[in-house]
Amino acid sequence: MSRIPLERKVLGENDRIAAGLRERFAAHQVRCLNLISSPGSGKTLLLEKTLGSFRPDRRVAVLTGDIQTDNDAVRLGRYGFPVRQITTAGACHLDARMVDRALEGWQLAGLDLLLIENVGNLVCPTSYDLGEEAKIVLLSVTEGEDKPLKYPGIFSRASLMVLTKIDLLPYVPFDVGKAVEYARGLNPAMDVMELSAMTGQGLGNWMAWLDSAATHGMP
Amino acid sequence: MSRIPLERKVLGENDRIAAGLRERFAAHQVRCLNLISSPGSGKTLLLEKTLGSFRPDRRVAVLTGDIQTDNDAVRLGRYGFPVRQITTAGACHLDARMVDRALEGWQLAGLDLLLIENVGNLVCPTSYDLGEEAKIVLLSVTEGEDKPLKYPGIFSRASLMVLTKIDLLPYVPFDVGKAVEYARGLNPAMDVMELSAMTGQGLGNWMAWLDSAATHGMP
Repeated sequence: MSRIPLERKVLGENDRIAAGLRERFAAHQVRCLNLISSPGSGKTLLLEKTLGSFRPDRRVAVLTGDIQTDNDAVRLGRYGFPVRQITTAGACHLDARMVDRALEGWQLAGLDLLLIENVGNLVCPTSYDLGEEAKIVLLSVTEGEDKPLKYPGIFSRASLMVLTKIDLLPYVPFDVGKAVEYARGLNPAMDVMELSAMTGQGLGNWMAWLDSAATHGMP
Repeated sequence: MSRIPLERKVLGENDRIAAGLRERFAAHQVRCLNLISSPGSGKTLLLEKTLGSFRPDRRVAVLTGDIQTDNDAVRLGRYGFPVRQITTAGACHLDARMVDRALEGWQLAGLDLLLIENVGNLVCPTSYDLGEEAKIVLLSVTEGEDKPLKYPGIFSRASLMVLTKIDLLPYVPFDVGKAVEYARGLNPAMDVMELSAMTGQGLGNWMAWLDSAATHGMP
């Protein structure tokens, strides 16, 4: 990506704040994961199922980003864990300053895991480091297996690709093998997982991955 | 959307170029439509079916935008109509200058209809006028009926909302009535259409809408 000077300056400032967040997360042993996908790929539903699967004493919190509405925070707030909405007022991505502000008043020492749901956008969130330990990209099988080729930025940088809505595989022309081949062509070390948050298929693997990430760091 | 000064400047420059494009389209009676959606909502497949439905003497051309790859131009180039790929090299939207450059060497006098497929992104393309007569937003039923609320920018500005992939309605929790209610709450004059490019259902309405738009301007 060729960047105009101002964009470089904005990203430089973002990186500075993100580095501070990363230090704080490390100091308190909080694993922070940044979930990125297109609109409607199933980030919120997956997080609902995730929170619903945790024991009540699990030390987890969620920040959820949207351009407008606090619908997602309402959906996610039902599970008894701390949830905060970041409304970006038009911005197409979360940045480190928004995350920094949203964390005000939270005791990071009380957390093991911080899940960040980014704004639904497969492009812009990729460039903004939030201090996370890893980016996770969700790709729903309704979107087509060519997306890693067309949006290489996020598929190059994500530690894990979650193929969502696999209950719809019988009804859509989606080639799982090709999707994985395209993604690993950009990013050979990428983990891949298939699930349906709707039916629960594959959720066990996802929860095990999260547990492992929260305990041992990225696989 | 609150805009930083540079963003205002960039958009001001874009608006100036877009105004020039709009004048040229008007001078040659070319109707230009700007298709915007999330990644994987079915823009390219709908355009393939559209081009495949036109008579060979139809005076139509397509510009198709992507961050990487010319896959869409290859797919769309099979139908015998002029097609050009705009590869944005990282940019998350098309802008008027890209369109201006891509039109070089084309005789606008030979066209009635110019279809522009924007980069897959429900946010950023909204702010960039391309000199089009109308924006069309596609929303696939797999994305959820809440998207007009969460991405109000494009749903406020589009003349037509096309609900795509309606063949999947039996398998997804999508409330068509609510989607329309949310979109019209932002934009009471918006046209709405439902179709499946895969099965062909609703394509007749779409072709009729396009014909009417190309002949008489926006409904």
